Amino acid sequence: MHKELKNQVCQANLELQKQKLVIYSFGNVSGIDRASGHVVIKPSGIPYDELTPDKLVVLDLNNNIIEGDLNPSSDTPTHLELYRKFPEIGGVCHTHSIYATIWAQAHKEIPAFGTTHADYFYGPVPVTDIPTAEEIAHNYEHNIGTVIIRRFKDLNPLQIPAVLVAGHGPFTWGKDASEAVEIAVILEQVARLALDTITLNPQQKAISQTLLDKHYLRKHGENAYYGQKQEK
Amino acid sequence: MHKELKNQVCQANLELQKQKLVIYSFGNVSGIDRASGHVVIKPSGIPYDELTPDKLVVLDLNNNIIEGDLNPSSDTPTHLELYRKFPEIGGVCHTHSIYATIWAQAHKEIPAFGTTHADYFYGPVPVTDIPTAEEIAHNYEHNIGTVIIRRFKDLNPLQIPAVLVAGHGPFTWGKDASEAVEIAVILEQVARLALDTITLNPQQKAISQTLLDKHYLRKHGENAYYGQKQEK
Amino acid sequence: MHKELKNQVCQANLELQKQKLVIYSFGNVSGIDRASGHVVIKPSGIPYDELTPDKLVVLDLNNNIIEGDLNPSSDTPTHLELYRKFPEIGGVCHTHSIYATIWAQAHKEIPAFGTTHADYFYGPVPVTDIPTAEEIAHNYEHNIGTVIIRRFKDLNPLQIPAVLVAGHGPFTWGKDASEAVEIAVILEQVARLALDTITLNPQQKAISQTLLDKHYLRKHGENAYYGQKQEK
Amino acid sequence: MHKELKNQVCQANLELQKQKLVIYSFGNVSGIDRASGHVVIKPSGIPYDELTPDKLVVLDLNNNIIEGDLNPSSDTPTHLELYRKFPEIGGVCHTHSIYATIWAQAHKEIPAFGTTHADYFYGPVPVTDIPTAEEIAHNYEHNIGTVIIRRFKDLNPLQIPAVLVAGHGPFTWGKDASEAVEIAVILEQVARLALDTITLNPQQKAISQTLLDKHYLRKHGENAYYGQKQEK
Repeated sequence: MHKELKNQVCQANLELQKQKLVIYSFGNVSGIDRASGHVVIKPSGIPYDELTPDKLVVLDLNNNIIEGDLNPSSDTPTHLELYRKFPEIGGVCHTHSIYATIWAQAHKEIPAFGTTHADYFYGPVPVTDIPTAEEIAHNYEHNIGTVIIRRFKDLNPLQIPAVLVAGHGPFTWGKDASEAVEIAVILEQVARLALDTITLNPQQKAISQTLLDKHYLRKHGENAYYGQKQEK
Repeated sequence: MHKELKNQVCQANLELQKQKLVIYSFGNVSGIDRASGHVVIKPSGIPYDELTPDKLVVLDLNNNIIEGDLNPSSDTPTHLELYRKFPEIGGVCHTHSIYATIWAQAHKEIPAFGTTHADYFYGPVPVTDIPTAEEIAHNYEHNIGTVIIRRFKDLNPLQIPAVLVAGHGPFTWGKDASEAVEIAVILEQVARLALDTITLNPQQKAISQTLLDKHYLRKHGENAYYGQKQEK
Repeated sequence: MHKELKNQVCQANLELQKQKLVIYSFGNVSGIDRASGHVVIKPSGIPYDELTPDKLVVLDLNNNIIEGDLNPSSDTPTHLELYRKFPEIGGVCHTHSIYATIWAQAHKEIPAFGTTHADYFYGPVPVTDIPTAEEIAHNYEHNIGTVIIRRFKDLNPLQIPAVLVAGHGPFTWGKDASEAVEIAVILEQVARLALDTITLNPQQKAISQTLLDKHYLRKHGENAYYGQKQEK
Repeated sequence: MHKELKNQVCQANLELQKQKLVIYSFGNVSGIDRASGHVVIKPSGIPYDELTPDKLVVLDLNNNIIEGDLNPSSDTPTHLELYRKFPEIGGVCHTHSIYATIWAQAHKEIPAFGTTHADYFYGPVPVTDIPTAEEIAHNYEHNIGTVIIRRFKDLNPLQIPAVLVAGHGPFTWGKDASEAVEIAVILEQVARLALDTITLNPQQKAISQTLLDKHYLRKHGENAYYGQKQEK
């Protein structure tokens, strides 16, 4: 069942370790098959060295386990909420990667200080509110999703494919599990650049909207001219 | 004698090098067999590349060598004091890992700035006092243990499995040598996150008790639901 | 066509990844054959693991593609402008390497804080202006070249073989593609040293002109005595 | 001639690269045979990958080449001055390693902030004056030695086996080439710890003389008890 998706999601999880975004069993990646509404996700607390496609868990969007002998990642309800509210996305990734987590722990959004940022994120990478005491007490992991969705009320998740959960760490997403991980790697790079940029120049402002537009739009959307034209 | 324990302690010591927490012969890990009261520990000044299980030293809790041709780690009396006063622990680890040592050298406890911290430590990672001149002059290594125990007067060592010895570096512990090393790796990650968090936002406060409870208790204790349920 | 040059430029591009100056398809290196006026450059958006000499694109200095099935790097017009205005150079390299990009994002030139800097750069590494809205709107990549050339009005590109494009990242150059990459590696080292030097001592001044002269001139020019005398 | 010494010095030079203290042809290590007064040193500008024992240069203490086809390191006169004035040392090492160079570029000595420092250096790691314009103009490399010796007027080079040349980088030494490199590795670690210690706590003071004595003297001198007793 969902054999190809499981392979892809397993590969994307292993890439987290290869890219040094995680240690031990930190982090998790999922992918969705929109036709069936089934989500494939990493099991909870399993070290990456022991991860194989058949250990992944399959759930529906209502958090019912469809297939799998292991408990799914404890962050599963967050993933599901993102798939429900962002219908265009196909993969979700969560890590505690160093530099993105630092911004999350400092409760600060990452300004677009340069074109590296603008190549991938069409504006600052936002930080959520802390969930309320009530939201922590009941359905905590679902409510992590809630605070993310609340933060994206006026944002386009396809143009800003990442968020920092305050006091916690980043979630990223993309068209599939593999792209969600790629965004996580780029986010880590951008977060690292931004941290030392503001250390070196505490008054540093974000780049202009004109430069942000130029870089984002030369890689994304109808008039993109970066890379090789793909058949459409 | 204690063949399995020696293998495990040797492996845990080698893991320190693999995880890049130590260089040369820095650091040491021990494990205890509570039935016999025997402690197995790394010999002093031996590089990791030359370390084999048969080179480990076996001592009783009164610092008498039971087995071994080499001098035990000069930090042995600290390990023994921890085993005597924290009867629930089975392994102890000491390193000069970069980020934990920075907090120790700055004489500052590590606040719980995020959920990565809360997943492993149920409160700030404490820093000891500097031993007094008298405590340095006589039985120094034993007294390192003394200042740690003094600092833990009102703390539960199972809930806070790490300490920073001021002006020196971290000690961590766990149910066995292997877990003590795992905690040392996590501590290093948490110390690194915290350092740049406070650099980025010098006014940053620790996360709320509610969020600390949620994350610590979803992984530890009776109501834990992280990971795979083990048979009990 | 230009088989040797393609091999050299391909090798120089791969060196970027090996030296950890780039991730994914970030960065690009080119080389020129001055006799024909042909420039060989990396194609756009191709990951380094898939890069082979036959995938490189050959262009003339007027941005006409002479050979190649793939789109050239989107930064090609910047490279071409540098080759046109700096007739002594034979290779150009562009990256978003961490430390050089931090200085670029902070809109600060890198002062010559030490002899490591002076061994390669005969003065501070300059930062450009941000291109104007007009320069961004039309022929953006060509105008990145324009702002670089404007900044070098009174500078000798052979003595200062690097520039920081404000809000973007570094360009470096040299006698060939390989040297352009070597300068990019050294620039990254120098940028890293300078960042923490000014963190440690915010009032730190550049080294004296005397010491700058001594180090730069013992490695460059007629009276150089560093290294092994080459036949001339 | 001096075959064993050449092997040892070559090995020590290669260790610099392995320990990531150098890139390209940066850095150099030498060793002395006190009986003959001959110094073996790395040739100038040769990459580490091409270094073999037979490429090393042999000189006497008056800077006369005794053997070797290549130019010796341009820093040779500094090494020779150290061997002349510190008769107890047998090896010298020079690098531009990141963290030690940062302290050198900031013209600041490294305070003994912790026991890692005290285990190897019996006090702060000193920084020299900048050589005068006159000292730069004539016999510059010899005069780097001069400013080091001047700084050590009241210091014992065996107890403080390292120095930071202001605006330049570190020199370290030891009983042989191999120990000089080991000290360079430790110095880099200590410099890194100290940088972030003072960032985290700008008012941080050095550890007490009592603690410095305890740690230095438990590893060095007559009453040392660290490591395994060697036959004497």
